[in-house]
Amino acid sequence: MTMTMTPAPSRHTVSPAATVVAELSAIFQRNRTAAAAYGLDFVELWSLASESVLGGKLVRPMLVISTFDALKSDESEANEACHSRQTVISIAAAIELLHYSFLLHDDVIDGDLIRRGCPNLIGKILAKSDEREPTSTMLHWARTGGILMGDLLLASTHQTFARADLTQQTRLRMLDLLEHTITESVAGELIDVGLGDGIISPDLTTILNMCAYKTATYSFELPLRAAAILAGANSHVENALSTAGRHLGLAFQLQDDLLSTFGDPALHGKDAFSDLREGKLTALVAYARMTSAWPQIQQAFGRRDLTHVEGQHLQNLLRECGAEKFAQGLVDEQLRSFYEVLGHPSTPVPQAAARVLLDLVDLLEGRKS
Amino acid sequence: MTMTMTPAPSRHTVSPAATVVAELSAIFQRNRTAAAAYGLDFVELWSLASESVLGGKLVRPMLVISTFDALKSDESEANEACHSRQTVISIAAAIELLHYSFLLHDDVIDGDLIRRGCPNLIGKILAKSDEREPTSTMLHWARTGGILMGDLLLASTHQTFARADLTQQTRLRMLDLLEHTITESVAGELIDVGLGDGIISPDLTTILNMCAYKTATYSFELPLRAAAILAGANSHVENALSTAGRHLGLAFQLQDDLLSTFGDPALHGKDAFSDLREGKLTALVAYARMTSAWPQIQQAFGRRDLTHVEGQHLQNLLRECGAEKFAQGLVDEQLRSFYEVLGHPSTPVPQAAARVLLDLVDLLEGRKS
Repeated sequence: MTMTMTPAPSRHTVSPAATVVAELSAIFQRNRTAAAAYGLDFVELWSLASESVLGGKLVRPMLVISTFDALKSDESEANEACHSRQTVISIAAAIELLHYSFLLHDDVIDGDLIRRGCPNLIGKILAKSDEREPTSTMLHWARTGGILMGDLLLASTHQTFARADLTQQTRLRMLDLLEHTITESVAGELIDVGLGDGIISPDLTTILNMCAYKTATYSFELPLRAAAILAGANSHVENALSTAGRHLGLAFQLQDDLLSTFGDPALHGKDAFSDLREGKLTALVAYARMTSAWPQIQQAFGRRDLTHVEGQHLQNLLRECGAEKFAQGLVDEQLRSFYEVLGHPSTPVPQAAARVLLDLVDLLEGRKS
Repeated sequence: MTMTMTPAPSRHTVSPAATVVAELSAIFQRNRTAAAAYGLDFVELWSLASESVLGGKLVRPMLVISTFDALKSDESEANEACHSRQTVISIAAAIELLHYSFLLHDDVIDGDLIRRGCPNLIGKILAKSDEREPTSTMLHWARTGGILMGDLLLASTHQTFARADLTQQTRLRMLDLLEHTITESVAGELIDVGLGDGIISPDLTTILNMCAYKTATYSFELPLRAAAILAGANSHVENALSTAGRHLGLAFQLQDDLLSTFGDPALHGKDAFSDLREGKLTALVAYARMTSAWPQIQQAFGRRDLTHVEGQHLQNLLRECGAEKFAQGLVDEQLRSFYEVLGHPSTPVPQAAARVLLDLVDLLEGRKS
């Protein structure tokens, strides 16, 4: 999912984004130095991965830091258990590396060489070769790099959580959170691949669960819950943020599907019909399958050689059968649930923290890409 | 590498092997239960992985426990810092899961469906399908299972190290050890793949380093150093065990190459000429490349359709050019260095711990498979 966060004004002189970039740079630099003992290929793998990560938008770490700062500014007594900003920054950076680790293995599984219009790590490794067309050997070498760097970054995330300067009780809460996140994200990926491979039946509930597990959990719940734990917030605050985050994450994901199916390709940066060409099983498709329009949609859906005219025809069919309206309704439903959690008179979430999430909704609603 | 350890007699009523099996079973059971919330495919993935792991020989965990027990029986004052046996067992089990995680990603990278004559996890997933010949979609699904289970087990290993009931100082030593092990094992895997893909030049030093990094580090150094740290041994003991372990690990790996090239296939359980058919770059081949026999060897080496007669001819050429003798010399050299570390009058390694390693050498020397 695509989103860009503008962090709330901070009383820290160095911007949170710059601090996260500095933390990530230090991690990559340390690993590159350690890799030098094992040859140039290993050093280069770290360098290429570093380029990709540092070029990212750092949405998840920013969400950790903004939420932590907001909770800290709250004057409740719970904040006495609050942890240092340096610990928060290191956890925020570790969450970005977890995200990147997931992307890498996802790209290996999907056979992708491109992500958001740029070569991914596998594509970057291939680009280092002299060949014009990647040979199967070069592809093998590049994908091996993707698998191994994914492993290294997954290990790195755990190392940061394990070493963080926390009380034993907080460390265990953070480790529980990390374990739950990985279980759920892997389960989501497995369901996604099972759907694509025709192993798992594409009913709507399965597809919505998959979106929540695969993306909302680690992109929204993890940063919000980590911020709550580190800020010493109680479990009511943590749970409310987590529930709100799940609804918001699902809304983002559903809107992502809507935009990449119906949106302006000049704005969202993907091929105009890439989701339709790939036969991506979204909530739109799950709905369309239950309508009488499906036999006609099915004829063109998932065809790699879809022409522009056929693509536009598919868009029209998905509109006419009600799939677009249905998915838009799901987005609205998730947002309503989100507002219910945060706007409820007895919500435990302090106002400043709610503001961080509400700013994200503004972003979602004004979004065209 | 293949080896089987018979644990030293223990004063514990339940055998160490049974304790490790119980620990691993509990981990898999817990994960299967948690997976149930995400559908049957996820549960089945855990079940199949559990079958594979519990069918293993548990060499690495046994090495942790035997070495720990041996160091503990030593009467030096250092052992006051000794940790509980339950902690040792959980770390031993975590090391087995790390091993299995590496094997899984190695199998994905190599495209293997078989390990030691039995279907690996990927092969087991394929076997669940009704198709006789695996389709490319089923292969994709099965390999995805291999990647994701490798990730889950890598995460699980870290969770155990991070949660172990240790002092902060010991935890950091254990986390450093785990980080070093993973860096070195991944570097070894990268070099191995680079050699196979013709990206890295197959000179002898590179091949020997690759063997040490890829296998000796996590199979020997990691268990020995973990045991030393947990037993409260000082860093001299830890380092001496680590050096001895590296020499022994390399000796095992080199002997493995010798056995699978020249040994009796009825005993080692692989195809008679699988290493030659795969074009595996071993120390034998690195040596042969430097002799005048290479042009002739090269003609048949790495040919998938190698006949039995051609295979025997290759064996003869590798013998005649001196490669077999050379590799045997390397095994002897590693063993000499190993004895020098342990047999030196000023060795810091207590006798009982040295005995654990010396028993492994007996195993290596009597080995035909």
